[in-house]
Amino acid sequence: MNIDGRPYRTIFADTDGVSVQVIDQTRLPFAFELKCLATLDDAAVAIRTMIVRGAPLIGVTAAYGLALAMREDASLEGIDRACATLAATRPTAINLRWALDRVAATLRQVQPGERLASAFAEAGRIAEEDVASCRAIGAHGGRLIADLHKAKGRPIRVLTHCNAGWLATVDWGTALAPIYDAYENGVPVHVLVDETRPRNQGAALTAFELHGHGVPHTVIADNAGGHLMQHGEVDLCIVGSDRTTAEGDVCNKIGTYLKALAARDTGVPFYAALPFSTIDWTLRDGVAEIPIEERDAREVTHLTGRTEDGGFATVQVVSPGSPVANPAFDVTPSRLVTGIITERGVCEASAEGLLGLYPERRQAA
Amino acid sequence: MNIDGRPYRTIFADTDGVSVQVIDQTRLPFAFELKCLATLDDAAVAIRTMIVRGAPLIGVTAAYGLALAMREDASLEGIDRACATLAATRPTAINLRWALDRVAATLRQVQPGERLASAFAEAGRIAEEDVASCRAIGAHGGRLIADLHKAKGRPIRVLTHCNAGWLATVDWGTALAPIYDAYENGVPVHVLVDETRPRNQGAALTAFELHGHGVPHTVIADNAGGHLMQHGEVDLCIVGSDRTTAEGDVCNKIGTYLKALAARDTGVPFYAALPFSTIDWTLRDGVAEIPIEERDAREVTHLTGRTEDGGFATVQVVSPGSPVANPAFDVTPSRLVTGIITERGVCEASAEGLLGLYPERRQAA
Repeated sequence: MNIDGRPYRTIFADTDGVSVQVIDQTRLPFAFELKCLATLDDAAVAIRTMIVRGAPLIGVTAAYGLALAMREDASLEGIDRACATLAATRPTAINLRWALDRVAATLRQVQPGERLASAFAEAGRIAEEDVASCRAIGAHGGRLIADLHKAKGRPIRVLTHCNAGWLATVDWGTALAPIYDAYENGVPVHVLVDETRPRNQGAALTAFELHGHGVPHTVIADNAGGHLMQHGEVDLCIVGSDRTTAEGDVCNKIGTYLKALAARDTGVPFYAALPFSTIDWTLRDGVAEIPIEERDAREVTHLTGRTEDGGFATVQVVSPGSPVANPAFDVTPSRLVTGIITERGVCEASAEGLLGLYPERRQAA
Repeated sequence: MNIDGRPYRTIFADTDGVSVQVIDQTRLPFAFELKCLATLDDAAVAIRTMIVRGAPLIGVTAAYGLALAMREDASLEGIDRACATLAATRPTAINLRWALDRVAATLRQVQPGERLASAFAEAGRIAEEDVASCRAIGAHGGRLIADLHKAKGRPIRVLTHCNAGWLATVDWGTALAPIYDAYENGVPVHVLVDETRPRNQGAALTAFELHGHGVPHTVIADNAGGHLMQHGEVDLCIVGSDRTTAEGDVCNKIGTYLKALAARDTGVPFYAALPFSTIDWTLRDGVAEIPIEERDAREVTHLTGRTEDGGFATVQVVSPGSPVANPAFDVTPSRLVTGIITERGVCEASAEGLLGLYPERRQAA
């Protein structure tokens, strides 16, 4: 997608052919900077310090990180060591391991001298597949927005939570892909962006990328969405997902469940947009089965932002001495989800719906 | 209530008998400072700059402000001028006008030489009546908590939103009064405190006052409440109200509606605690009839807090260039409200329920 008229991806092979450029997401939204990853260590640091974030982007960065490691040590031991280093950067990220396994398997089949080129090619394929998958999610979801526009004859207001945009993937995003698709096709769309406390990914990243691409949007406090839906100011909700059960329960950033409840109460359609890799076919009841990460209290008590003089400061906003709880995700039961948008199409949030899109899982299930 | 073991009220006549002390709420939660109001102008500034806030406290401060004005000019014109000055400080505050009208009516019936003493006495009566009203809300609501404790045999976890504590009144508060009552009666209670973006009254004020009085509590992001209710970690919700319709629709700080939806979805009782003055008997349908104040975007885009070195800084947290919407309140329909707690008791959130507590309104309705 564009930043001020110029198209970017979150990660791309550098023109020198032996290093990779990424957007430094720790500097967003106040500064736009590219960072060059030239070594395995660069890639590991980029993932660990959240210079790159978002499951698909982490996977692609790890794949390139393994490629960069081949410049230093292309032996079988080198592959194993690099995989171990990269896998340890974000222990719970499923895409990361999947991408490493895939590149490593390719590398083991070729001679050491070919491994650098082979790894770069495979990492590039993973990146292209991610773009194609997000693009397809965008096309399927974009039709929903276009249909609503046709029916209502006015700009369609889409509420989203957290950042499931192109910054979390290589390009297009998941929840935001349908919005970019509609926008590119001339369908008038306006995005309501939940701030997404405590890490403010909506206010910082979703707002930044929509602004950069020129998509009309408004940032709101997480508390405001229900009121706006009550007053007919939201036509559609689209969120991403970190994990979705075989029966269509959607685990996503904390607060998603509250928006799904408001959508149901006010008759607003509520969709989750996600690639197949997000579906955990081993799980049925999301509320009961998905463990929810409890994160650092400091994410709630302190905030970092830009000061008037252009510097940065971290300020404490919670009364000193008060304990804090910080669950990072919640689960929206499938009964509150109008549909799931994947790279294969749109389906009901149910076992039958998902198996309809992924019939190859029918035997397994 | 106590701050570190010492009982305070938010406003009280100074020992000199001719001025008033208030807690400077603009300095909370990081500094506890009293401020002396010695003139009409002091009182007007205190209300306008939110040194005092909360409808009941604003009313009492205005009453004392009118008393202070009598030291300068106790003529009938002086009364009118002082009322006009004080009424203009927060144009939409209903309690403010009500308190001014009440004190002014008393003053017009006595000679100029008696007006200073008379005004102080009347302001004191308004303050005492507010304390008694909050105390009664506490007693009625406290029984709900005590009953739940008896039934469940463990500490009762109460979720609240915004600050409807003693800092918003003279003492005890509205939504927090039942919690203080339970705590004082030895009923084990633990409060889940919504941060309450964008102005963070929960994280700053509710957390401060619960900590000061020693009531166990945990601050959470507004997004977290639904997840906690889903997992059985909330026994009861109690919120305040800025305006309640004759049929029991509850207008309160933005985000309250989302918590009420989650409470309904998970079977958690949801109560609003409010004095009779909050009930607007002329309104029936809250969502349709109550105008919602749109506040400054800067409340969302910027945050002020304490820096590591003990200073204060204001930081921008929303991506530059993104528009912001900031509705300040929402309406929770009565169908989502388990009951309303007032100084007269607990009733169903309905016209019949409220008229049962206020039978004198039956003829009027």
